[in-house]
Amino acid sequence: MESDSKHSQVNQLKVVDIGISTHNEPIAYLREDSYICRAEGFSANSRILVKTPNCKVIATLNVVDCHVLPKYHIGLSKIALQQLQVLPGDLVSLQHPAVVKSISAVRKKMFKHKLTKDDLNNIISDICEHRYSDIEVACFLSVCAGNHLNKDEIIGLTMAMVNVGERLTWSAQKPVFDKHCIGGLPGNRTSPLVVSIVSAAGHIMPKTSSRAITSPAGTADTMDTLTHVDLSLRDMQQVVQDTNACLAWGAAVNLSPADDLLIRIEKALDLDSEGQLIASVLSKKIAAGSKHILIDIPVGPTAKVRSQAQANRLIHLFTDVGDACGVHIRCVVTDGSKPIGHGIGPVEEARDVLTVLQCNETAPQDLRQRALLLSAHLLDMAENCGIEQGLEKAELLLDTGKAYQQFKRILIAQGGIKTLSYARFSCVQVAKYSGLISAVDNRRLARLAKLAGAPLSPGAGLRLHANTGDRIYAGQPLFTLLSDSQGELDYALGYYADNADIFSVKRE
Amino acid sequence: MESDSKHSQVNQLKVVDIGISTHNEPIAYLREDSYICRAEGFSANSRILVKTPNCKVIATLNVVDCHVLPKYHIGLSKIALQQLQVLPGDLVSLQHPAVVKSISAVRKKMFKHKLTKDDLNNIISDICEHRYSDIEVACFLSVCAGNHLNKDEIIGLTMAMVNVGERLTWSAQKPVFDKHCIGGLPGNRTSPLVVSIVSAAGHIMPKTSSRAITSPAGTADTMDTLTHVDLSLRDMQQVVQDTNACLAWGAAVNLSPADDLLIRIEKALDLDSEGQLIASVLSKKIAAGSKHILIDIPVGPTAKVRSQAQANRLIHLFTDVGDACGVHIRCVVTDGSKPIGHGIGPVEEARDVLTVLQCNETAPQDLRQRALLLSAHLLDMAENCGIEQGLEKAELLLDTGKAYQQFKRILIAQGGIKTLSYARFSCVQVAKYSGLISAVDNRRLARLAKLAGAPLSPGAGLRLHANTGDRIYAGQPLFTLLSDSQGELDYALGYYADNADIFSVKRE
Repeated sequence: MESDSKHSQVNQLKVVDIGISTHNEPIAYLREDSYICRAEGFSANSRILVKTPNCKVIATLNVVDCHVLPKYHIGLSKIALQQLQVLPGDLVSLQHPAVVKSISAVRKKMFKHKLTKDDLNNIISDICEHRYSDIEVACFLSVCAGNHLNKDEIIGLTMAMVNVGERLTWSAQKPVFDKHCIGGLPGNRTSPLVVSIVSAAGHIMPKTSSRAITSPAGTADTMDTLTHVDLSLRDMQQVVQDTNACLAWGAAVNLSPADDLLIRIEKALDLDSEGQLIASVLSKKIAAGSKHILIDIPVGPTAKVRSQAQANRLIHLFTDVGDACGVHIRCVVTDGSKPIGHGIGPVEEARDVLTVLQCNETAPQDLRQRALLLSAHLLDMAENCGIEQGLEKAELLLDTGKAYQQFKRILIAQGGIKTLSYARFSCVQVAKYSGLISAVDNRRLARLAKLAGAPLSPGAGLRLHANTGDRIYAGQPLFTLLSDSQGELDYALGYYADNADIFSVKRE
Repeated sequence: MESDSKHSQVNQLKVVDIGISTHNEPIAYLREDSYICRAEGFSANSRILVKTPNCKVIATLNVVDCHVLPKYHIGLSKIALQQLQVLPGDLVSLQHPAVVKSISAVRKKMFKHKLTKDDLNNIISDICEHRYSDIEVACFLSVCAGNHLNKDEIIGLTMAMVNVGERLTWSAQKPVFDKHCIGGLPGNRTSPLVVSIVSAAGHIMPKTSSRAITSPAGTADTMDTLTHVDLSLRDMQQVVQDTNACLAWGAAVNLSPADDLLIRIEKALDLDSEGQLIASVLSKKIAAGSKHILIDIPVGPTAKVRSQAQANRLIHLFTDVGDACGVHIRCVVTDGSKPIGHGIGPVEEARDVLTVLQCNETAPQDLRQRALLLSAHLLDMAENCGIEQGLEKAELLLDTGKAYQQFKRILIAQGGIKTLSYARFSCVQVAKYSGLISAVDNRRLARLAKLAGAPLSPGAGLRLHANTGDRIYAGQPLFTLLSDSQGELDYALGYYADNADIFSVKRE
């Protein structure tokens, strides 16, 4: 048809890398006078379908001044270029996108109808294909938050998130173990210890971890200071075959890719949804092929979980959803009232891990005890030996250096052992008056370490010299702030000046 | 403090107009290597506070490649420049924004707590000050959608939206009337007719209208083809003083500015929330100082309101919320089964309005009858004369040319009468076979007119030659498609080729 070919000729635009990262939402930049903008009735924030012969992506439109782009060009943000697999100079055409059907399921949920397995599969797969705008993802998360997902919906969401990513399988010979901490405690870096102890006992623990999202360090950030963590699926399988375990970065192996997309918006909205939390944790574990999973739930006034009641609800949901998804879950409630260990930030947490493994007398005892307790639970799950026996066995593995040897084996299998760096700038902060530290605010302490540069500067963060329950005197060091630039150090100090009550001291 | 002044020196960036319109969400563009990006731990999609000595705005961060901006510069989107009142070259500083407190009320709503008057005032005022990101606005709308707002909350939302904008007052001598149509029917341009008739009877009708959001024309778009509509508050008051009425563009006078911010996101999410609808309509009317408001609710399978039950719910809510806000509401349910008039698009609808006012025999009778009925209701509200008497009076005002004279007086008072333009390209579409038109799809017909270029090209749209209930023969003209460019015409024709069933024809 003549009009069709005419139309397709004019509807060809040359791609420009506009040099902007818009994170997960593809953005297309079009000139305000562009023929297509007018013809299609597109305006700022419209959604448009950008197409090549092989590929297509739905992008949000930003309208630009004429000097920003030459005529007949379209600017694309990083994620749009990547999703569309185009290079600058390639030709693309534009269309109104078809309605994304799964959005109607989101609307249904608004009106209090339950989401079916199919609804959730469609929603998650559309989100993973970047068919949802950020505001549409926000809409989905908002209608599910406030604990509006029932158990069946959480199961459906978990499996939907597993289904869209890669999935690891391990030889059926031996059971596969994993652990996860709900988080919220700065410095609580037990995973490298637990993995070393439990795999030193001969059990399989292919651990994948995330980088920090809102905390000063994730396990992947800490491990990154000690070895290579961005393993391919094949590398990871080789490491596990060689050593029974690994400590890899989960995102590199594309397990549960939906999780990253959801979690960014969830954090930006500061949403705390039990359903999303459970689906996020379990989908990654199930995709990693784990069958027996220990969940550490720290409870405390400034931790993520703030009451025993909330912990109990989570335990029920974790266990039931795990059952339905074919994995065995055990939950342990731990003390979440204060930070753990001495170091906060990737390198400083790695130092703590090493001192514990080396049974150094400066090792933080709270971190050691936690790692032993969690290991004991896993050993009990694996060997049915009881917690007490498990604890003894774990202590033996740690104190004889077997866990440390095993840790080094894993590091070497992952590509070698890195030397820890030191922060370039540091500053000791002392107590202003004497008394008893009655509480430490986990959230603001984490914020302080982040302002100092963690986790982007791995050496940045802080080293605690006192913690909840300690009696201190005026002038006694509370912590050393560590940073790789004077500016960041100053900035963090400014924050601390306004937030000295991160440490609550009862004067005596 | 030394560290403070150091910090403030480095935290100074020079503003660049990056030439991008991001509609209502301020976006700040920072280099990936920027000191501040690192120091503050900002990453793509973070929220940052951008400050001048006099002004501040919360912006969403997009990280850009180094070649996009010089060092120590920050790019700002149009709305960010405007909100911050800065020009390129001005200096700004950055900070982590304080938590926007009203967001916690949104979270409370998620957990099914009711929003108080204060909550709603805080939320709406924060949204108006652009303190919410688009995803946060989406979150607010999502938790309120699905009819989760009760009557008190809708009242609170309505008054919150009134409180943040300008508010008109009129001399207390005479009652002030207004009308509003819930919408969804292409071509249903009764407002200019009703305002002319009712104000010709001596009543006060200071009508403000919106431009099209998702339709091919709003009343403001149609009036813009006939006269000036972007009146200042003072101009508008003068016009009303001179003529008893006006037909102005509401956004120009900043009545209920929250509405524009909410409605864009609502449309993008395709949310249909009764609470938002009522607050949106009533807040604008109350802000305009109207006391007696007639609401036209067309009901039909492809109209906005699809069932009598839904209409009844709306009537109750409108009436009760109006009462609580001190305005008197009357609702009329009308036939929403088909488009009204012959023209669709700004100019074509203006033509219909003129033919009705001129009592031309080509005037669309359905548009005339609707305008008379709505006028009769308003006359009854004003004079307590009964509908029948009101209808007679309205007919007399129309048929004697008094309404037309009044319309021209309004146009002249608003700055003069414009001549209607003609679309440059047109194309007649004919029926493929004979039969009875059993239905016309309002939504897709509106889409067709928009693809042809309406409302951006005022002359674009279409002219209907047949409508629901008409018997047609094969080859008989159904409509003329009108466009200002061949490309747009072709594009719309392509859409019609795929959607010829916009007209359902029962073969006979």
